[in-house]
Amino acid sequence: MSACDEVKVAFLGLGIMGSAMSANLRKTGASVRGWNRSPGRTSLETARAAGVEIVDSIEHAVKDARVIFSCVGDEHDSMQLLTGEVAKFGSPNALIVDMGTIGQAFARNIGEALAAHGLRFLDAPVTGGDVGAREGTLTILVGGSSEDFAECKPLFDAMGKKIFHCGAIGSGQAMKLCNQILCAVNMVAVSEAFALADAMDIDKKAIIDSLSAGAGGSWVLTNLGPRIVKGDFAPGFTLDHMLKDLRLVSENQGADTLLPGTQLAIDLFKKARSLGEPNGGQQGTQAMFRAYAQPVKVSSTNFNI
Amino acid sequence: MSACDEVKVAFLGLGIMGSAMSANLRKTGASVRGWNRSPGRTSLETARAAGVEIVDSIEHAVKDARVIFSCVGDEHDSMQLLTGEVAKFGSPNALIVDMGTIGQAFARNIGEALAAHGLRFLDAPVTGGDVGAREGTLTILVGGSSEDFAECKPLFDAMGKKIFHCGAIGSGQAMKLCNQILCAVNMVAVSEAFALADAMDIDKKAIIDSLSAGAGGSWVLTNLGPRIVKGDFAPGFTLDHMLKDLRLVSENQGADTLLPGTQLAIDLFKKARSLGEPNGGQQGTQAMFRAYAQPVKVSSTNFNI
Repeated sequence: MSACDEVKVAFLGLGIMGSAMSANLRKTGASVRGWNRSPGRTSLETARAAGVEIVDSIEHAVKDARVIFSCVGDEHDSMQLLTGEVAKFGSPNALIVDMGTIGQAFARNIGEALAAHGLRFLDAPVTGGDVGAREGTLTILVGGSSEDFAECKPLFDAMGKKIFHCGAIGSGQAMKLCNQILCAVNMVAVSEAFALADAMDIDKKAIIDSLSAGAGGSWVLTNLGPRIVKGDFAPGFTLDHMLKDLRLVSENQGADTLLPGTQLAIDLFKKARSLGEPNGGQQGTQAMFRAYAQPVKVSSTNFNI
Repeated sequence: MSACDEVKVAFLGLGIMGSAMSANLRKTGASVRGWNRSPGRTSLETARAAGVEIVDSIEHAVKDARVIFSCVGDEHDSMQLLTGEVAKFGSPNALIVDMGTIGQAFARNIGEALAAHGLRFLDAPVTGGDVGAREGTLTILVGGSSEDFAECKPLFDAMGKKIFHCGAIGSGQAMKLCNQILCAVNMVAVSEAFALADAMDIDKKAIIDSLSAGAGGSWVLTNLGPRIVKGDFAPGFTLDHMLKDLRLVSENQGADTLLPGTQLAIDLFKKARSLGEPNGGQQGTQAMFRAYAQPVKVSSTNFNI
C-alpha cells in the first residue's frame, strides 16, 4: 500500500472497541466502511461521527476493501463471519485482520480457510481496553507474514501505540493468552496479599503505597489494587471476558501443559462471579478479591487442580 | 536522639546483609559496635573497613548502645538473642530493632518480652537484597510506636531509600509477608505464561518485550523473566529464603485465611528445589519455572489446596 489516503478499509463489528478503532482509522485518511450485525447500537455513533460510512450488508462493506478488519463476539463468530460472507465477497488478495481474542487454533484454521479463497490473514488481538481503543493507545499483538504485517502497520499505528509482530498466524493470539495468564494470576497475588493484610489487620492501601515500586510490584497492584481498597468492582475488564479468554487458554494449551495457577484463577473468577449475581459476570476482574472475603470462604473443594 | 553523631549503636549479626547495613550506619557519624556469632566470617570485613568496632561478646556490643540492631538467622534466633543476652545487658530504655523476617507473632512476642525488661522494640524487615544493603537502597518496613520510629528514622535513612512506618509492632512483618506473597505468586504467573509460550512455540523473550509495560507487567516479569529465558537460575533471592518466608505466612495467616495461590507457589518452589539437588535450595526463585518444564510434570497430587 503506497499511502494511507488511497486505502479502502472495511471494519466489521462496531461495538465499543470496534467503533472506536474504526474511528481512529479515519485519521490516516483512509475511507472506511463499517458494518455491525445490530445496526441500532449506540456504539456505532462514534464511528459515524468520525466519518465511517455505515453500511447495511457485509457484501457492501468488504467488496472494494483492500484491508478488512473484524472485531466480533467470540472465536465462533469470527470463524463464521470470515470464512462465510467475507471469504465470499472479499476482493482477490484482500488482507483480513481479526482483532478479537480467538485462540491460536481458530486463528490458524481461519487463516487456512481464507488462503484457500485467495485471501490473506493476520490475527491481531489487542490489550488496553475501551480507553486504549478510544485514545488510540492499544497494544496490538500481530501474527502473520512479515509482508502482510508491514502493509498493515500504518493502519495499526492509527489504532495503537505499541504494535508487535509476534510471528506466524496465531502468534498474536498466543501472546495475548500469555498476557491474560499474567493478568489473571497477578490478580491472585494481589487478592492473597490483601487477604493476608486483612487477617493481620494492616491497611491494604499501605501495601500499594509501600510495595508497588519494589519486587512485589505489578500493573494489577498499582491499577486495580486501589479499586479493591475502595470496594469498587466496576469493570475495566469484565469477569465474563476474562473467563472467556482463560477458556481459550485451556482449549489451546495442549494436553501436556499443566497450568494450575491459571486453573486456580479460573475457579476464583467463577466464585467471584457467583457472588455478584444477577450480573456477576459484569464485575471487573478485581472482584476476584470477593472470593477471599468473609464470610464466604474459598473452599478446597472449589479447585479443580 | 538529638543528632546522629552522638549515637552509640550496636549491630548484632554481621552476615552479608548485616555487615553492609552496619557499614552504612557509620555514614551517619554514629559509633557502631558489631558482633557476630562466628567471628571469622569474611562478611565482617565490610563492616570493619567502614569503621565498625568488632567486639567478641554481646554484652560488650550492647551495654552502652542507645539503639541495638539485629539481623540473624530466623525467628527462633532473633527470639533467643533478643530476649536472652540483649534483654539482660541492654541499657535501660534502649531501642531494639530486628531487621530479619520473623513473622508477626514472633515480633509481637519479642516486643512484649523486651517491654517487660524496660526495653523498646521495632520490627523492621527489609526488601532489596544484598545489593540494596550494600548501596543503602533497601526498602524498610517498620512496625512499632511512632515515637520509636521517629527516633530511629535517621538511622534507617542511612541503610534504606524507602522507609515505611506500617503500624504497631508486627506490622512491618505483616507488610513483608504480603510482599513475599506478591513476589511468589507473580512468579507463578510468569512461569505459566512462559510454559504456555513454550507449548505454543512462541519466543519467551518476546513476551517480556511486548507485555512488560502493559496490564500483565510486573517486577518479576521484567527482572527475573530474562534470567529464565537465559536458563540462569543463580540466586538473587534463594528458594530456601523464599520458602522460609512463605512458611512464616502459613504460620501467621490464621486458621480462617485460605491462600491457595500461595500454597501452590510453595509446592512449586519445593518441586523446583528438588530438581536442583544437591543444592537446589540455593537456586534463585526464578527456578520455579523448572517445575513446569518437560519431562518433569507438576502433578495434581502435589497441591495441598
